[in-house]
Amino acid sequence: MTRRVRLALVGLGNVGKAFLGLIGEKEAVLRGRYGLELSLTAVADSSGGLLDPAGIDLPALLAHKTASRGVGSFAGGTPGMPAPALAAQADADLLIEASPVNLKTGQPGLDCVRVALQRGMGVVLANKGPLVHAFAELTAAAAAASAGLAYSATVCGALPVINIGRRDLAGCTIHRVRGIFNSTSNSILAAMARGGSYAEALRQAQLDGIAEADPSLDVEGWDTANKLVIIANSVLAQPARLADVTPVQGITGITVGQVLEAKERGQVVKLVATAELGDRGYRLSVQPEWLPHDDFLAGVNGWEMGIVFETDIMGLQQFKVDERGPVPTAAAVLRDVIDLISPLPIYRSTNYQEASCLLPRSL
Amino acid sequence: MTRRVRLALVGLGNVGKAFLGLIGEKEAVLRGRYGLELSLTAVADSSGGLLDPAGIDLPALLAHKTASRGVGSFAGGTPGMPAPALAAQADADLLIEASPVNLKTGQPGLDCVRVALQRGMGVVLANKGPLVHAFAELTAAAAAASAGLAYSATVCGALPVINIGRRDLAGCTIHRVRGIFNSTSNSILAAMARGGSYAEALRQAQLDGIAEADPSLDVEGWDTANKLVIIANSVLAQPARLADVTPVQGITGITVGQVLEAKERGQVVKLVATAELGDRGYRLSVQPEWLPHDDFLAGVNGWEMGIVFETDIMGLQQFKVDERGPVPTAAAVLRDVIDLISPLPIYRSTNYQEASCLLPRSL
Repeated sequence: MTRRVRLALVGLGNVGKAFLGLIGEKEAVLRGRYGLELSLTAVADSSGGLLDPAGIDLPALLAHKTASRGVGSFAGGTPGMPAPALAAQADADLLIEASPVNLKTGQPGLDCVRVALQRGMGVVLANKGPLVHAFAELTAAAAAASAGLAYSATVCGALPVINIGRRDLAGCTIHRVRGIFNSTSNSILAAMARGGSYAEALRQAQLDGIAEADPSLDVEGWDTANKLVIIANSVLAQPARLADVTPVQGITGITVGQVLEAKERGQVVKLVATAELGDRGYRLSVQPEWLPHDDFLAGVNGWEMGIVFETDIMGLQQFKVDERGPVPTAAAVLRDVIDLISPLPIYRSTNYQEASCLLPRSL
Repeated sequence: MTRRVRLALVGLGNVGKAFLGLIGEKEAVLRGRYGLELSLTAVADSSGGLLDPAGIDLPALLAHKTASRGVGSFAGGTPGMPAPALAAQADADLLIEASPVNLKTGQPGLDCVRVALQRGMGVVLANKGPLVHAFAELTAAAAAASAGLAYSATVCGALPVINIGRRDLAGCTIHRVRGIFNSTSNSILAAMARGGSYAEALRQAQLDGIAEADPSLDVEGWDTANKLVIIANSVLAQPARLADVTPVQGITGITVGQVLEAKERGQVVKLVATAELGDRGYRLSVQPEWLPHDDFLAGVNGWEMGIVFETDIMGLQQFKVDERGPVPTAAAVLRDVIDLISPLPIYRSTNYQEASCLLPRSL
């Protein structure tokens, strides 16, 4: 039996488009393995909104966006419709919020999430802004509405940092978390270790499509700090805001000379986020660190991101991911959709009749 | 509000004893963070069984075991009571099966699990035997009874390999899994790389309490193959038995000369489990491999265990753990108990009033 799940999507940037692509690409897997049929019934970007309870034609919408045109000019679209208005009207089971991070206010994503939760819709976030601004408010609203709120895509994309921290380290005291959460900074530092200047490395990262035109969020440490704030609130249960992360120091002050000198001494310069448990809770910081070569984070290379959990009863756990482009983050959004709608309890019987859908379709 | 959860425990070896220790040590965390009070109402070891619906005195039981005496001679115990009989009579919400692995039949653990599931009790396994022998039967029985069946402790202890594979890689096609799952073999190979002979390295591992008196399960690759079979069934949804793993080749044939020669060439010898997707499903194998120095598994050192997932849409994900002694495996059992009784949905609101229980008790 297949269950039709109606989705509202806010934000049609790289992650939003990649997510719509995955709905098509993974149709058979979703149906066979999880009994789900995902249908887009509402979508908004900065140009406007579109509501269609019968389900929007995804290939047509993606072709429209690829031609650099917005939802407002798509057949049936309403130019200028604000995203929160879409969230208020959508016939949907889940809202997916994938609009750009707004560090100052978290808007318009924050209002979209508020509206959806008030209506009892579940919410999946790819956008860190609303969580960084209002974690306690949103988790309380979700609990009050018995609505799902998932955000595993907001920290390290497909690497399940949030889920491991919240579910798999159950019962632990986490003494320390250290991580490399920003692949733009990490790849710039790697390019500098090969002898390029900061400016050259940044320009190359922009040409490669890694860094944004305005890279300040990445290279000044704010993207990393955002992710640390989400980890603090969700995994460490410590209410924290950006102002609680001190220092937030990026890599803009790092010189090639420093990076090469470190290399000669067998060290590696990395932009590291740390949460360390002390007698007043966790101390949060983001700053460049000179790591010995055998530190796990020193081996988180180029594009990679990684995290280290130091625990009391579950040992030292170290994770990294090599993922590129928007697809892995979109895949994390898909994971959260599956988790909220059709969670796979660990005791669920494996249905061998359905096992073939684990294999590529060509088999 | 606190919920009392009644546990039946079969097996009081190192993991079983460590689990009972954790119930005491984590009492405040379990109550504060998860609203749980764990009470042992039935216990069995090879000497007999003990039933007490009011809750067994854990410190007294642990002191009795520490004095090398069995459950059969503990106050109220029944000498010679078979574990499946205990499972049939226990007043318990969950059965925890932590008896030694029996590769030939999976007994008596297998019958304990069957009986518990038939009675609708949830089951948490630390023992691989029943899963390796009867994965499909047990998962079907659990589904039919709507009873929980969790076993994250059976593969890599506290490293959440099974949970990541089943829940966090949702929607993926996993092209290849590679792992180092046996720390005894891994530490013996490390000792050989420092120049010791296989026999010396094994003796030292036995003196250090890493290796069993009969180390054949570990060094001949069967423990690794067991874990690969569990991953194949649960994560890869491929019905598999031990006979499907070919070859199963351990490290007993590896010479110090080979290990040192590899080192000179910049390689590392590791005992590697592999599941590789081909046109007839996954091909499963366990054998020593000569890995280049920069392979992630080459950096899984000494006591560590690790795993690599190669996926289609979630990138390359690499995990390792440094864990020692029985506590991390017991902690994984505790994680499964929490997960089955009081799962922490990822949308559950963080209760800041309870956040202090995340900190050590001294704070």
